[in-house]
Amino acid sequence: MGSLLRNLPASTPEMLTVFGDAAMIQAALRFEASLAGAQGEEGLIPPEAAADIRALCTAMVLDVPGLAAEAAHAGTLAIPLVQHLRDRALNTNGIARYVHFAATSQDVADTALALQAKAGAALIDRDLTALGTQAAALAQAYATQPMLARTLLQPAAPMSFGLKTAQWMLSIGAARRRLQLEAAAAAALQLGGAAGTRAGMGGRGAAVSARMAADLGLACPPAPWHARRDALAGLAGALAIVVGAVGKIARDVSLLAQGEIAEAFEPRMPGRGGSSAMAHKRNATGCQVALSAAIRAPGLAATIFAAMPQEHERGLGGWQAEAPVLAELFCLAHGALAAILPVIAGLDIDAARMQANLVAAGVGEDLGESAALVAASLASRPDAPA
Amino acid sequence: MGSLLRNLPASTPEMLTVFGDAAMIQAALRFEASLAGAQGEEGLIPPEAAADIRALCTAMVLDVPGLAAEAAHAGTLAIPLVQHLRDRALNTNGIARYVHFAATSQDVADTALALQAKAGAALIDRDLTALGTQAAALAQAYATQPMLARTLLQPAAPMSFGLKTAQWMLSIGAARRRLQLEAAAAAALQLGGAAGTRAGMGGRGAAVSARMAADLGLACPPAPWHARRDALAGLAGALAIVVGAVGKIARDVSLLAQGEIAEAFEPRMPGRGGSSAMAHKRNATGCQVALSAAIRAPGLAATIFAAMPQEHERGLGGWQAEAPVLAELFCLAHGALAAILPVIAGLDIDAARMQANLVAAGVGEDLGESAALVAASLASRPDAPA
Amino acid sequence: MGSLLRNLPASTPEMLTVFGDAAMIQAALRFEASLAGAQGEEGLIPPEAAADIRALCTAMVLDVPGLAAEAAHAGTLAIPLVQHLRDRALNTNGIARYVHFAATSQDVADTALALQAKAGAALIDRDLTALGTQAAALAQAYATQPMLARTLLQPAAPMSFGLKTAQWMLSIGAARRRLQLEAAAAAALQLGGAAGTRAGMGGRGAAVSARMAADLGLACPPAPWHARRDALAGLAGALAIVVGAVGKIARDVSLLAQGEIAEAFEPRMPGRGGSSAMAHKRNATGCQVALSAAIRAPGLAATIFAAMPQEHERGLGGWQAEAPVLAELFCLAHGALAAILPVIAGLDIDAARMQANLVAAGVGEDLGESAALVAASLASRPDAPA
Amino acid sequence: MGSLLRNLPASTPEMLTVFGDAAMIQAALRFEASLAGAQGEEGLIPPEAAADIRALCTAMVLDVPGLAAEAAHAGTLAIPLVQHLRDRALNTNGIARYVHFAATSQDVADTALALQAKAGAALIDRDLTALGTQAAALAQAYATQPMLARTLLQPAAPMSFGLKTAQWMLSIGAARRRLQLEAAAAAALQLGGAAGTRAGMGGRGAAVSARMAADLGLACPPAPWHARRDALAGLAGALAIVVGAVGKIARDVSLLAQGEIAEAFEPRMPGRGGSSAMAHKRNATGCQVALSAAIRAPGLAATIFAAMPQEHERGLGGWQAEAPVLAELFCLAHGALAAILPVIAGLDIDAARMQANLVAAGVGEDLGESAALVAASLASRPDAPA
Repeated sequence: MGSLLRNLPASTPEMLTVFGDAAMIQAALRFEASLAGAQGEEGLIPPEAAADIRALCTAMVLDVPGLAAEAAHAGTLAIPLVQHLRDRALNTNGIARYVHFAATSQDVADTALALQAKAGAALIDRDLTALGTQAAALAQAYATQPMLARTLLQPAAPMSFGLKTAQWMLSIGAARRRLQLEAAAAAALQLGGAAGTRAGMGGRGAAVSARMAADLGLACPPAPWHARRDALAGLAGALAIVVGAVGKIARDVSLLAQGEIAEAFEPRMPGRGGSSAMAHKRNATGCQVALSAAIRAPGLAATIFAAMPQEHERGLGGWQAEAPVLAELFCLAHGALAAILPVIAGLDIDAARMQANLVAAGVGEDLGESAALVAASLASRPDAPA
Repeated sequence: MGSLLRNLPASTPEMLTVFGDAAMIQAALRFEASLAGAQGEEGLIPPEAAADIRALCTAMVLDVPGLAAEAAHAGTLAIPLVQHLRDRALNTNGIARYVHFAATSQDVADTALALQAKAGAALIDRDLTALGTQAAALAQAYATQPMLARTLLQPAAPMSFGLKTAQWMLSIGAARRRLQLEAAAAAALQLGGAAGTRAGMGGRGAAVSARMAADLGLACPPAPWHARRDALAGLAGALAIVVGAVGKIARDVSLLAQGEIAEAFEPRMPGRGGSSAMAHKRNATGCQVALSAAIRAPGLAATIFAAMPQEHERGLGGWQAEAPVLAELFCLAHGALAAILPVIAGLDIDAARMQANLVAAGVGEDLGESAALVAASLASRPDAPA
Repeated sequence: MGSLLRNLPASTPEMLTVFGDAAMIQAALRFEASLAGAQGEEGLIPPEAAADIRALCTAMVLDVPGLAAEAAHAGTLAIPLVQHLRDRALNTNGIARYVHFAATSQDVADTALALQAKAGAALIDRDLTALGTQAAALAQAYATQPMLARTLLQPAAPMSFGLKTAQWMLSIGAARRRLQLEAAAAAALQLGGAAGTRAGMGGRGAAVSARMAADLGLACPPAPWHARRDALAGLAGALAIVVGAVGKIARDVSLLAQGEIAEAFEPRMPGRGGSSAMAHKRNATGCQVALSAAIRAPGLAATIFAAMPQEHERGLGGWQAEAPVLAELFCLAHGALAAILPVIAGLDIDAARMQANLVAAGVGEDLGESAALVAASLASRPDAPA
Repeated sequence: MGSLLRNLPASTPEMLTVFGDAAMIQAALRFEASLAGAQGEEGLIPPEAAADIRALCTAMVLDVPGLAAEAAHAGTLAIPLVQHLRDRALNTNGIARYVHFAATSQDVADTALALQAKAGAALIDRDLTALGTQAAALAQAYATQPMLARTLLQPAAPMSFGLKTAQWMLSIGAARRRLQLEAAAAAALQLGGAAGTRAGMGGRGAAVSARMAADLGLACPPAPWHARRDALAGLAGALAIVVGAVGKIARDVSLLAQGEIAEAFEPRMPGRGGSSAMAHKRNATGCQVALSAAIRAPGLAATIFAAMPQEHERGLGGWQAEAPVLAELFCLAHGALAAILPVIAGLDIDAARMQANLVAAGVGEDLGESAALVAASLASRPDAPA
């Protein structure tokens, strides 16, 4: 019942997979396996039970629609998932009581989200890096290519095209660094038990947490964060800023591609950018996807901020709102990136037209310090080539 | 790749179906069939071609994942959909050129959305009616049941429980009437052709439109609305207000269900509201779904408002952002309603505790004009029983 | 300490006055005067006390900064305002106990907001009417003026300039009708007393309310609406849609005014639209104000929606968030209107350039049914001239 | 015409001053003075002209309402401000042409905003530090004080009150560190000239910028950021997260202060928290301000994100939307902090009632690892006392 047509091209198959049902179930099972392993090592549960549970989690195959219906009824995925594990455990060797030991539903849900967020952030980081590199290459190549700068949508003064693309590079770089920081903080283990006190862990909760965080590749926070959601909010903001930075590039390209300006175009791709009514059209399909994402992301980030003041130790409504909205943000951010990357990589630039439009505007030829600003921008990249 | 686990219990299978891929394709095919029919009747295309196209649309079976991939590449569903129709038409009787005649992609997309919106609004109207009736029944039954009114989360003064539920009824009723108005306006035929001028329709565009609107059960606007999106924005606002009105009820119930207050509870449902860690818990699962929706809906409505200033005759990014966001709003609104309906229908009310908490607060016994206000509220329902 | 520089040109002196401190205090005093009058007529308080209180309210002059500081400390304007009235009443004739009789702070605050909203909506209605008239005049005058339709920011097909402006007219008209409906519903008397039960009014609450509503020119709802905020949310949405509809016009004008397109410009106004750095520029200052409002309004409307699920009989944080945000929405909406009105009234249209750009695009000359669509649009205006 | 009653108690006089008209004009004059100074040192303008302009900026006294009206007409503050400076310069010694030399309006506006943001962030940092310290003191003092943990608004399990306050401390600390980072990045000099190329600065633009940044205490970015707004967006997100973290504390306190729970209350302050209708009430006025801010902040942050895709070298509508919205975010964030600080500093805690409610819930006595988690949380503070 989930909609592909609504999710493509707004997102990518890659990111839809990261936040798909199979991946979510897989992440939840990884939590349970890791929990059992760590509790086994800390002596909280018998080592053989731990091993059995880990094996069970690895082998578990679940019917997604059935599980979704059960989760919808129970109000959380964790309840039917754990029940299936326990049922299976009973059938085999009676270690059911060690499954999900001393944990709570939100421990599973938040840790699964953290694992998905980490994977999603890696995809975005990869493509931001590629996009930044493309923008840098344009900046270098066109550092002194004259074009008309436009301000308030009016002809303003000469500049170089390289300076415009250096600006793209700078914002992509800044958005990438922010996302790295925020994703590292948000991709944190959740383990608090029913009330966030790690009751029932015999004083070994911190040790279990440290083992699990290491095992799962997640940060280990000083305390559970069931109702402390600033890191998720920081992540949401960082994703919205990625989308905004990509959207800015799309705005520029789509304006330059107007028929009367015609200075840069999306590359022609067979079957893309056509019109069902007008054969001559060369639609800015990549820009469209990115601009659409830029319209949608702010409201999603605002939702995560709005969910912050959650009640007591675990809220009602707040944390349940976050996961689908964060997933949507990841999906839109990657969709925007995937749409704009080939546009910039294959940007069809008409340097002669840039020159002609500049001359027609009659604003002179002085590029100011465009070239120096490009050089300074390129030099400011922490990952700039020597 | 669409996610069931993220869409349930936040929405309902019913609404997910209305906005699912199959329904969207079906709605698009209905547009094409209706267009051909009307154009045949108006003599724009040969009657037999019209009949063939209608038959083709009815018989068409499309592979959803394949079509989604094609749509993602083309940037719009209409292009591959029309192509499949034309391919099939060529194979049979050469009427390909009459498929999608003089129409544009957005004509299909917007009309399909209008059809889905109409169906979705009907579901919500049905359940708002039921919820209003439940609230009215509580208002009648508890018109003089004393309870403590609470303001700014502090004990305030006596009131009747019936007055509280009459307030729920009033807001549900108002939200329903607004949604009816806005849905009727937004569920409008889109038919403008490439540039919104109905070029190529030989002066019969208005007649074709009138026929199609009647055929599809949609409103017939005075002109195409490719870049005039106020009706969609009005619909989005109305949906957000439905969610807010439901969220208010959920807020009240969840606060009354607190352990120390204990005046009303969600009905017990086997397997629902439990905790993976605490067997004694009686979680407010229905309220949770509704409150979660109330956190998510405002940002979605804001997105539709933000998309309004679209460029020229058809925008870039703006209108493409609307359909998935409106779909999400419908899904959340129905999910919230479906979650709260059984809560109110089976609300577990502890009248003795209401009385006891009131006495304990020491704020007297004067219910003021509670009963009269309940009566006036009930009488104000346009659909109130005689 | 309020900022003029931040409020102008984003709003207008007229609307800033409607939502200014003096107007708010005045509206609060009108509530108290009307309450006393109605309670006198219903025999709840002595007629002479009523007359004295009305006189007191009329004569009352308050120091705004002092009152603001007191209100900030008390958490609500009503407490110090009522205290000042009572102090003055004591000094004169001992009718202090009849001031604000049986009312609560939110009764004053909401009724004052309703009065301001009514006044604000009238200003906006006036200017929407003017803008619609201007757009209609352009539609009539340019019904067959050829220009290039642009879709997805690409050259598309021929259309008439009159059709573009007819679309503006239609969206302005629809936005105006929605605002009328929503403002009429939201401009409602609030009178509930401490817990919304009208306790202490001796069964005359409904009669007092009816008198007050008539006196103040407000709607009289079936029950107090302290925690039932759908009408305010509807109003917020309607205002955001007004802004979006104005923003759409600004988007079109600013794109047409680009140097390379040059088909329409804001009228020249001495001292406006200049640049501190470039003497040759002709900035789209009116469009800028409108587009800026269109970016800001959606988040404000979302805030009002988000505030809806208020706790119990009067919420904590929710209703206090609404008044300043609604005020901001009114201010932005009127600022956008006031900025765009002279732009459309004096729009500098280059018909020859429209023609030239159309020819250059090479998309033919067929205006389709542009003229007929203009005629149908004009005919659809409920207030269209015969 | 700006409203004090709408700004208080939502904000503080301190922050309203930072973002008030006088401060904005002062910041703009500091920009012009610093520009002249740096250009004098770099030999771009005569040293004596630089000195005269600096003196002029220091001495300049401007009529705020008059200047606001001029700015509203011109569309930007910079134009009338620079004009006044030039007029004055002409009257004295003819150095008018060196005023605002090679700069543009947005250079002034953005740098002024950066200066205000820096000052505003310092106020918030100061109060976040104080709040974190108060929360830490509570964590230490109540590390083992038993209370009932509540999840999904239901009784859950035992915990310590110290753990709850340690969670507050952690989120305040994280919000503070994020704000420091983002404010440092956003408080950056803007100097690009008309088109962001630093034309007219004779190749000394970078040197002038470095001098100005040092002089003004701002960051010096590698290139102007006229249309590269990620840093402002990061700042907006950080402010919204501060508000959310404060709102979470307010949520908890207001829920604990409910009559039936009664575990913690806002301190009594004469004249605050009363009711105009109910003398017995003890309203959570501080929490109300913070929760109201938490409802308003998300939409404002979303607005800044939405403004990001600005057109070309300087956008139309986008950057003009940012300054008033950021100002509002600063004002709300500081208002929330100022409201919650005395609440936490003087929190009226009923430990006996905590114990009693815990016992009544019948969920046992095991505090789990509460104390250890408090200790770990306190130890994780980078600024924790040894």
